[in-house]
Amino acid sequence: MDSVHGDFSALQAALRAFAEERDWEQFHTPKNLVMALAGEVGELTEIFQWLTGEQSQVVLEDPARRAAVEEELADVLGYVLRLADVLGVDLREALERKIAVNGDKYPAARVRGSARKYNEYGDDER
Amino acid sequence: MDSVHGDFSALQAALRAFAEERDWEQFHTPKNLVMALAGEVGELTEIFQWLTGEQSQVVLEDPARRAAVEEELADVLGYVLRLADVLGVDLREALERKIAVNGDKYPAARVRGSARKYNEYGDDER
Amino acid sequence: MDSVHGDFSALQAALRAFAEERDWEQFHTPKNLVMALAGEVGELTEIFQWLTGEQSQVVLEDPARRAAVEEELADVLGYVLRLADVLGVDLREALERKIAVNGDKYPAARVRGSARKYNEYGDDER
Amino acid sequence: MDSVHGDFSALQAALRAFAEERDWEQFHTPKNLVMALAGEVGELTEIFQWLTGEQSQVVLEDPARRAAVEEELADVLGYVLRLADVLGVDLREALERKIAVNGDKYPAARVRGSARKYNEYGDDER
Repeated sequence: MDSVHGDFSALQAALRAFAEERDWEQFHTPKNLVMALAGEVGELTEIFQWLTGEQSQVVLEDPARRAAVEEELADVLGYVLRLADVLGVDLREALERKIAVNGDKYPAARVRGSARKYNEYGDDER
Repeated sequence: MDSVHGDFSALQAALRAFAEERDWEQFHTPKNLVMALAGEVGELTEIFQWLTGEQSQVVLEDPARRAAVEEELADVLGYVLRLADVLGVDLREALERKIAVNGDKYPAARVRGSARKYNEYGDDER
Repeated sequence: MDSVHGDFSALQAALRAFAEERDWEQFHTPKNLVMALAGEVGELTEIFQWLTGEQSQVVLEDPARRAAVEEELADVLGYVLRLADVLGVDLREALERKIAVNGDKYPAARVRGSARKYNEYGDDER
Repeated sequence: MDSVHGDFSALQAALRAFAEERDWEQFHTPKNLVMALAGEVGELTEIFQWLTGEQSQVVLEDPARRAAVEEELADVLGYVLRLADVLGVDLREALERKIAVNGDKYPAARVRGSARKYNEYGDDER
């Protein structure tokens, strides 16, 4: 019910209509959409590349940067949603499953508040 | 109403709780989250890099690849949601605004079904 | 000898002088340079995202695209060289070692001309 | 002369032979190589994503991380060289030209040591 009327399906329907109206579905192979997603993430990365961690936390205080961050985040999300729609992946279900898997992989009692543990877990989720 | 009870806020709440329970919020600066997002998009890209456009359209028919695609898409979405939550960006509003802006920028009547027009629009949205 | 007077060291010296003259070394932490590299790769990706494989092979025939590709490739290479310089990694040695490792990992006699073998090797080097 | 016998051409010849021996040139379209490059940059990004700027500067002190950084940098460089080889781009010339262009764009006397100026220049080269 939720997934029928939720954010994902509403936005995916809007993005699908947008592509259909322009006859752009022909360009929307999963391979191309993955590249478009990577390109947009690159633009988001450029906004943050020279900022310190602290500066990145107040990046929205500057109106020009706020507009840029919101626009790039929207572009990134748009391609994630479009890609999932074209592939037929249920994003909500996939993410809920991943959170459950990660909960088993990183039990809070074992990893909590430990920088040493933290580093051992390398480059994975956190 | 929708945005309070929708997919985004429910998943963001779950991701926030996950980080809090592990004391991992200290690592979740926007700068770090952007890098984590870029890393996950890199993993998604690797799945598609040697496939043709046609092969990419049937990638989910192979169970191992399907699992990999769903997992990486979930990771990507997870970091998009977490980043927006930490920054305080309303993703749904940002994407709806972007779709409206793109609607003005690429009027269907002008860009529809024209490969020549298509290429003129360069690397932008489509 | 070669590595002292070769392309890498000459270009790295030029990039180092460029940063020093502008007092920009303070921004060139490895973390920031990795992000800048990712951003430039994103721009390169955008040039190719809607092209077919065949179109990508003749991308340099269009003068505007040629200029864009050369510029983005230069930016990507520049950050690879700068990052290696700041970290103190010998790029030539690292790549020669990697090629040797891959030679053992993918023996030509075993992987040659087999699409089936090819796919088994998944997302690795090739 | 230099570019004939330099690092780039020697390594590109080795990478070309590697692909030829395995009949992998068929997969090395510019589009696919750009994706492979993006994938490797994603792996490099994962190594640095949770590190502070300071931690990133001493990342090579840890032997395991040093090996990982050198390997990922080699992979990234390998795809940059291979892509330029397939496209027929002279990397050294392209980068020297870009450094000259940037020298005009960011005159040292004007941008030196100024955080304000620095931020104005946004996400460009530095």
